[in-house]
Order: sequence, then C-alpha cells, then structure tokens
Amino acid sequence: MEAVRLIGPTVEKILLENQENFLVPAENVASVFYNHPLSHALLVLSKVGYSKIPVLDSEDHLVGLISLSNIVEKMMDLTGFSMDNIDGLTVADVMEVNVACIKADGDLEDMLHHLVDQAFLPIVDEDKVFVGIMTRKEILKSVNHLAHELERRYLLISKEETPNPTETLHVV
Amino acid sequence: MEAVRLIGPTVEKILLENQENFLVPAENVASVFYNHPLSHALLVLSKVGYSKIPVLDSEDHLVGLISLSNIVEKMMDLTGFSMDNIDGLTVADVMEVNVACIKADGDLEDMLHHLVDQAFLPIVDEDKVFVGIMTRKEILKSVNHLAHELERRYLLISKEETPNPTETLHVV
Repeated sequence: MEAVRLIGPTVEKILLENQENFLVPAENVASVFYNHPLSHALLVLSKVGYSKIPVLDSEDHLVGLISLSNIVEKMMDLTGFSMDNIDGLTVADVMEVNVACIKADGDLEDMLHHLVDQAFLPIVDEDKVFVGIMTRKEILKSVNHLAHELERRYLLISKEETPNPTETLHVV
Repeated sequence: MEAVRLIGPTVEKILLENQENFLVPAENVASVFYNHPLSHALLVLSKVGYSKIPVLDSEDHLVGLISLSNIVEKMMDLTGFSMDNIDGLTVADVMEVNVACIKADGDLEDMLHHLVDQAFLPIVDEDKVFVGIMTRKEILKSVNHLAHELERRYLLISKEETPNPTETLHVV
C-alpha cells in the first residue's frame, strides 16, 4: 500500500555535489581484452590495486569483468594450484558476463542500488562502449559530505511530531 | 577559520537505524592464522567471496590482512608465475600489518572516514580480539535508507535563504 519512495531532492542535490568525481574515466582504469591469455590478465591484476577489472573487445565495448578469484579458482585442481591449469585459456574462458552497468547520465537511485551489491559499477555509452567506472569510494566521499553538510545548511523539522490540529481541538 | 564540522544528529540517527546489521560477526567472516602456509590462505581466498580477509593469532587477536593480490604478487618472478615461489612461505610473510580497525562502539564519523579508503573495516574489542567486520555494503544500505527516508520524515528549511533581520531593517 506504500507509495513508491524516491530519493529526497535536497539529499540528492548534496550527494551530487561531488558528481564530477563519480566517474573514474576509462583511461585511468586497468582493463584487458577478452581474447588475451589468462596469464596476461593475472599479470595485470597483480599489478593494479583492484581485485576485479573490466574486459573489453577490440572496439572498447564492455563484454565482462575478470577477477583474481576467477583466475585462481581455475588454477586449482584436486591436487592443489598449478599454473598449468590455466595454460592455453583466454580471459573469455573465465570472465563474468551479463554485468550490471549504467549510462553516465543514469540516475542516482540506480547507482546507489547497484553499488550496494558491487564494489564498482561500469559506465557505458549508448553503444555499450566502456567509458569508466563508478566506485563505492567516491559515493562514500559524497555520503561523508552529505552527513556533514545537510544539517549545517538546513533546519530539519519533523513531520511526524507536528501536532494534528483536529486532535488538539478535541482536547479543548 | 571554520569550526570543526560534525555529522548532523538527525542524519546520524537515520544512518544508525540499520546499525544492528553493521557488524558481520567473526563467525561469518573467513579468516586465516598468521602461521598457516600461504597456499592454505590461497585456498581459503579462492573459496570465499572476498579478495581480502583478516589474519588472526591463536588467541583470535587481529594481526593483519591478507589478499589474493598479496599472494599472487609473491608467486611472480622474472619468468612468470609459479607456485614454487610461495613454497615454504607462511601468511605472516606476506600479510599487511598495521591495519586500521575500530571498536564496536566506535563512532560513525570514524567508520565512514575509514570506509572511504578500505573495502571493509575490522572491528576488535579492547584486547584487540577480532569480533567482526563492517562493510561498505552495509553502510551503503543505510545510505539508501537515509536518502529515501530523510525528506519523507523531515521538512527541510534552508538556513542560507532565511533573510537576515538586520539587513531587512537596513533596507527599510
């Protein structure tokens, strides 16, 4: 019975004051091609600070994500871990597909929703060309900003504690 | 010249309404002992959903964190990756130490601050015994809740747009 609840306009406005930093542009994000050897992805992942990175095709379309976990799992067999187990495999063989992503002008509601479940959210253009990522880190910076600014700038009056005039009349 | 700014009390109250879920208790968090073989940590990390987990001593004190990256880096030499390179190493040989952590009754200000830079924050008791972790996921759930609830419950009146009575007098 409850109406659809949306993000309040003032909260949204303050959260978006950091919006220009929301997008980490593609040129600053490590990525691999889907047809690269898996050992190359392992090398890239071991060199960057992220445990998961985007996978692109030769025209920079986002086609998946690959993580250290995906690769290490594949290295494992019944006797332990061996590099031999990933010999001859490509990124496409182990990457995650059907990745949730949004457009750069996507709404905050969607971004927040996805970032509850994913450490970062790939941003694509209308042709699914990868343009960058949005991270929990940047959203949390905005949340910090909101938490400190909102009550400095606004007086909050509870709607729930406002006495009901009809009831007041009854008392009188 | 600016006064120290704190988190607004109403914002804090609403963010903390999900507080009971902030702590993922130790029994639900995969961890390893510092003296375990590194290959064991690799096995645990490849089986759990996290790319980094806490390292404990035999009395459950938090002594560090270990990530897939830490281990994979150690597997690498000039000719590529090999399991031989981590033979004989223990978790203590590659773990990160001096990890930022807080007490369960730590304040929200500190938690938010740390979670901007870390994917999760270990929680310890007064004896540095590991009691659980706090994750960005749970904080982001609270942020979602705040974004939807605040303006439903409170009327926001801008302090900046309130006319200054002194100035008004001058105009008159």
